[in-house]
Amino acid sequence: MQALEDKILQEGKVLSDTVLKVDSFLNHQIDPDLMREIGEEFAKRFAHERITKILTIESSGIAPAVMAGLIMGVPVVFARKSKSLTLKNHVYAAQVYSYTKQTANEIAVSKDFLHDDDVVLLIDDFLANGQALLGLIEIVKQAGAEFVGAGIVIEKGFQKGGDKIRQQGIRIESLANIMSMKEGKVTFQREEQLN
Amino acid sequence: MQALEDKILQEGKVLSDTVLKVDSFLNHQIDPDLMREIGEEFAKRFAHERITKILTIESSGIAPAVMAGLIMGVPVVFARKSKSLTLKNHVYAAQVYSYTKQTANEIAVSKDFLHDDDVVLLIDDFLANGQALLGLIEIVKQAGAEFVGAGIVIEKGFQKGGDKIRQQGIRIESLANIMSMKEGKVTFQREEQLN
Repeated sequence: MQALEDKILQEGKVLSDTVLKVDSFLNHQIDPDLMREIGEEFAKRFAHERITKILTIESSGIAPAVMAGLIMGVPVVFARKSKSLTLKNHVYAAQVYSYTKQTANEIAVSKDFLHDDDVVLLIDDFLANGQALLGLIEIVKQAGAEFVGAGIVIEKGFQKGGDKIRQQGIRIESLANIMSMKEGKVTFQREEQLN
Repeated sequence: MQALEDKILQEGKVLSDTVLKVDSFLNHQIDPDLMREIGEEFAKRFAHERITKILTIESSGIAPAVMAGLIMGVPVVFARKSKSLTLKNHVYAAQVYSYTKQTANEIAVSKDFLHDDDVVLLIDDFLANGQALLGLIEIVKQAGAEFVGAGIVIEKGFQKGGDKIRQQGIRIESLANIMSMKEGKVTFQREEQLN
């Protein structure tokens, strides 16, 4: 997605060969117009699926997921990273290890909002090692819902989480797929390279 | 706002005289269409202000804030509840005590995304004791930015946080203001009662 790649090149900060900071439009400050374009792109790519629900994870997945939900006309559920007082039981839960924060977190979704007749699209801001996405897939499985694939805003393709999950036959649509961030320079994997 | 009050009456769960759960459309599952209507209502109520930035707090403030930002054409910044590894310094920070969770949290906003020439609208999902809102106001003050007021989705008017903050001359626009939740019944404060 050209507008997103342009934004990453203009505003993304490459902190190391593996760390990209996009706090100016996605992870701390949010560009609502770009989020709408992202939502439209997800809706287009998954237009032929009979999606009933979008599942994401707090906090940075919420903005792109809600815009996709608005355009696709379906509710959005965000998995919580820690159980709140009013959500102790009656949940689907999975463990997610964060390499960035070096901690394991439980993510949870109330059984009230994901059912075996749901057709679920996962949306998340980043895909690197794939831990968060695997946790969300685990939750969809626990619910017995149908899973059509994942829409990712930025994939760090060089970290191979996406490749491993695709090898399981799972559809992942990444709107920007980064091939390399060596020497502070972001290089994208072109669509044609994927085919 | 009638559509919001209707939704609260239809789907809100009154767990006690003080606890209202709206997990089906705001705090866990999100209704994107309702969020857009909420965003439009905030934009209408603050139409005469020259707002340059919306500030909210993760996670449940993000959806209504991003919709308001989309309609008003301004970026949204969400305060983080704990500092991430890439955000240790260079922040405005404030303490927020949560009566629900009985813990004090630090909220933080990077100095990169809030400046003394910004005109800030605060948006949050709930206003009860006012602790989160006071924390956000403190951050706006630290930035030296202009502060035009706060847009709140649901105010628990009987908990008086909003009244205390209004007495400081601060403008708060609540789209639903709950007067009482006694015996499981939600009663709203009508607009005319506020005037």
